[in-house]
Amino acid sequence: MTDVLEKKSRRGGGRAARVAARAAALPEDMRPIRAGMEGGTLKVLSEAQVAQIHEAALKALETIGLADAPQSGIDLMVGVGAIFGTDGRLRFPRQVVEDALGKAARNITLMGRDPVHDMELSGTKVHYGTAGAAVHVVDSATNSYRESTAQDLHDAARIMQALDNVHFFQRPMVCRDVLDNLEMDMNSIYASVSGTTKHIGMSFSDPTHVAPCMDLIHMLAGGEEAWRARPFISNSNCFVVPPMKFATESCETMENCIRAGMPVLLLSAGMSGATAPSTIAGAVMQATAECLAGLVYVNALSPGYPAIFGTWPFGLDLRTGAMCLGSGEQALLSSACAQMHQFYGLPGGAAGGASDSKMPDMQAGWEQMCSNVMAGLSGLNLVYEAAGMHASLLGFCLDSLVLADDLIGQAMRCVRGIEVNEETLALDQMAEVCLGGNGHYLGTDKTLALMQRDFVYPTLGNRMSPKEWDENQKPDLIVNARARKEKILAEGRCLVTPDLDRRVREKYAMYFES
Amino acid sequence: MTDVLEKKSRRGGGRAARVAARAAALPEDMRPIRAGMEGGTLKVLSEAQVAQIHEAALKALETIGLADAPQSGIDLMVGVGAIFGTDGRLRFPRQVVEDALGKAARNITLMGRDPVHDMELSGTKVHYGTAGAAVHVVDSATNSYRESTAQDLHDAARIMQALDNVHFFQRPMVCRDVLDNLEMDMNSIYASVSGTTKHIGMSFSDPTHVAPCMDLIHMLAGGEEAWRARPFISNSNCFVVPPMKFATESCETMENCIRAGMPVLLLSAGMSGATAPSTIAGAVMQATAECLAGLVYVNALSPGYPAIFGTWPFGLDLRTGAMCLGSGEQALLSSACAQMHQFYGLPGGAAGGASDSKMPDMQAGWEQMCSNVMAGLSGLNLVYEAAGMHASLLGFCLDSLVLADDLIGQAMRCVRGIEVNEETLALDQMAEVCLGGNGHYLGTDKTLALMQRDFVYPTLGNRMSPKEWDENQKPDLIVNARARKEKILAEGRCLVTPDLDRRVREKYAMYFES
Repeated sequence: MTDVLEKKSRRGGGRAARVAARAAALPEDMRPIRAGMEGGTLKVLSEAQVAQIHEAALKALETIGLADAPQSGIDLMVGVGAIFGTDGRLRFPRQVVEDALGKAARNITLMGRDPVHDMELSGTKVHYGTAGAAVHVVDSATNSYRESTAQDLHDAARIMQALDNVHFFQRPMVCRDVLDNLEMDMNSIYASVSGTTKHIGMSFSDPTHVAPCMDLIHMLAGGEEAWRARPFISNSNCFVVPPMKFATESCETMENCIRAGMPVLLLSAGMSGATAPSTIAGAVMQATAECLAGLVYVNALSPGYPAIFGTWPFGLDLRTGAMCLGSGEQALLSSACAQMHQFYGLPGGAAGGASDSKMPDMQAGWEQMCSNVMAGLSGLNLVYEAAGMHASLLGFCLDSLVLADDLIGQAMRCVRGIEVNEETLALDQMAEVCLGGNGHYLGTDKTLALMQRDFVYPTLGNRMSPKEWDENQKPDLIVNARARKEKILAEGRCLVTPDLDRRVREKYAMYFES
Repeated sequence: MTDVLEKKSRRGGGRAARVAARAAALPEDMRPIRAGMEGGTLKVLSEAQVAQIHEAALKALETIGLADAPQSGIDLMVGVGAIFGTDGRLRFPRQVVEDALGKAARNITLMGRDPVHDMELSGTKVHYGTAGAAVHVVDSATNSYRESTAQDLHDAARIMQALDNVHFFQRPMVCRDVLDNLEMDMNSIYASVSGTTKHIGMSFSDPTHVAPCMDLIHMLAGGEEAWRARPFISNSNCFVVPPMKFATESCETMENCIRAGMPVLLLSAGMSGATAPSTIAGAVMQATAECLAGLVYVNALSPGYPAIFGTWPFGLDLRTGAMCLGSGEQALLSSACAQMHQFYGLPGGAAGGASDSKMPDMQAGWEQMCSNVMAGLSGLNLVYEAAGMHASLLGFCLDSLVLADDLIGQAMRCVRGIEVNEETLALDQMAEVCLGGNGHYLGTDKTLALMQRDFVYPTLGNRMSPKEWDENQKPDLIVNARARKEKILAEGRCLVTPDLDRRVREKYAMYFES
């Protein structure tokens, strides 16, 4: 094999032409990968197992139910048939859940400010994005952590805007330098909107913040009507405190978001072994039950309202009680969730791609790929936390975010899968090469035509031979990631007009430069 | 989520007990992962696509056939119905292939020198191991490459012997310091056998080497009878030069191996876009056709002889003509091959887990995981090149080999999948926790019982919080990998008796210390 390789690298002739061909930008429909490709080749659960989990979730809703709903939620859910018990728990007869499933929105579109970034959530269509509430930003240059700021969040938005393979921007880290919580929400919104035209996810910290935040959002959208026509921000609602309790305030926030026309993410973030069963089946079942309760809630308030089924069970290291997101167990949890979403035919999301490693090292690489590729192969509509996330969600790394473009691009190539037809089977070509040709496929018209359409080339991933690598001063992955980050930040521009930017900053205190 | 995390890490109480429980060694049947677990949840090809590939392969064998068989092979294959054409190509009517499939060995066992390492190759049972012919060893400490030696090969064998999740040792690198080719084969055998009791793979460079190498192997096995009863070495035969040509000398080597009782790997290593079609379907189809021809050959010589269906199509970077193993395309190629093996019910192997990166960095992590986990999920019996392989097969890294234990362990956890039953659904436990208990699952008997049986814990992968990590002087993954490597090498011992070692070294020139 080595011999063959060496022979190939001596060819040389056509290489410059091929490199040039590759450098030309591809029209969208010729790109080898794009947002919303369909997965579904991985099924970590059998159909029977999916049905078992569904049945157990229904039973849990019927017999255990959920505590701590706000009065408004109790009224809404009792109004559609839920039973409020003397123990303060809302229980859901099977028919109530089935009615909600009948009404629930399917095939929803999460919009970008630029429609080119709209995401259709149906079937097994896959999208990758950021998410989380990291409190640190990871500095690979100094091998250290520091508190994340509004500027970091804005920089993250600007960077992901430049990355083809990161499709949405749910706020990945908290602006720790903004001490007032309402100001923090405002800064999170504007740091994101001024940095990216892709779909944005927020997580309002208080029900009373929704109205003032909507004022800012309307201003950014060009008025309430324009906002309601194309809502480009969704809200992540941690509407339950697992196991099986509604998060009272978050439910109120959710109600306010729905009234404001903002799509909601019904987020159940149980920790397997702590706030959810330690078994994968049990954790998925509990998250499913909780999100079904959320679905009843949303559809009682507004039938058919766009809601994302957010079963996000997290892994835990049972030796220490610490969260761990980079494990194989986590990849299985999120993959199984994707199948539950598909069983219900609901738009769904879960966590994938986060690492437990503190730095963008080899561990980060294997952990981020494991759950990212498995979630994608499972056809998860929204893979949250897919890029840049370290230290079991505590740290967000901009250098790692840049590298996620390659990592997720590779995962997406796997999601795209294999086309089998007369052309790709290439029997005619084989006959030509073997019986009449020069004995190899290099440089045939067919091979060159497919070079761009079928192959994903990494931007920073290095494919040089050891000799080339040595002659090129041994390029370092992380150093190059930092250089690309700096280049993007230097070239990026504020994605709202100067006039709007001025008006926003006159009205609100912003803690970052755009 | 951060709040919950911080609360948990303050618990402290049971942690020491849990860490101690974890430290106790587990009986084999309690281990969360083990060699030979069944995959098969990933199907990158539909059943119809598998059938299309099969039909195209049969047609290729019937109409294009293979050139360059040695006379012995022509005689054997014509004897079972193949047609030798005036163009020098052997063509295979469908019935000839079906007859071979009818006779072919299934459910074979590749043996270790220690029977505890025997590998049953059937169905979707998955095993990971090394392989390749790297010409460099990668030194992460100096960020450099140097030529690989017999000592490196022996060290690699000793290291992998200590790694639970690396199941077999096909020779991953070439002893560049042994200039005589027969001596190199001898050194490769003894460097491996004296370092590991797991199954070993060789790749003899010349048909005339088989007899003298068997003398050494008989000596190591305790005589020919003992060898034939438990052959613990298989030979990797690159029996074809793709596209569709037999490799004359390698075929003769293969015949000699079969007569010597050594299981053979029918290895077709086409490069997609160069020596195989650039499409995934085409490359898999061609490899399938070539290996079917090999199957006819083997079963014509010795019906039912143990042979591994080695469809190893490799990826190529079409821009440069360089091999690339770390791509998503590669993961799809090997996953599709696993399905072809299962379609035929034959023991099979393909390449997974090799990286294009020169060093054990983040790129290496994501590339190694991508194809390793997908190959495993696809139920590939033998994932070759799964550990330690860099620079598109040109470099082998002992530090990376050590880390592969964690990386493959995680992939294996995903292969194991999800158990769904009354116990794992945990409805009773949920009722207890929610309705009567303290509201969480931590420390329940059920949770603790599953802590070891269901969870895979990394050895070097770091799950500390940023605070702990800082307090522990920021442990570095690669530094720790090197430390583990040194510890294994310091503690390892020669795995043949001192007497046998002395006799071997008296008879043969060995270029390494054991």
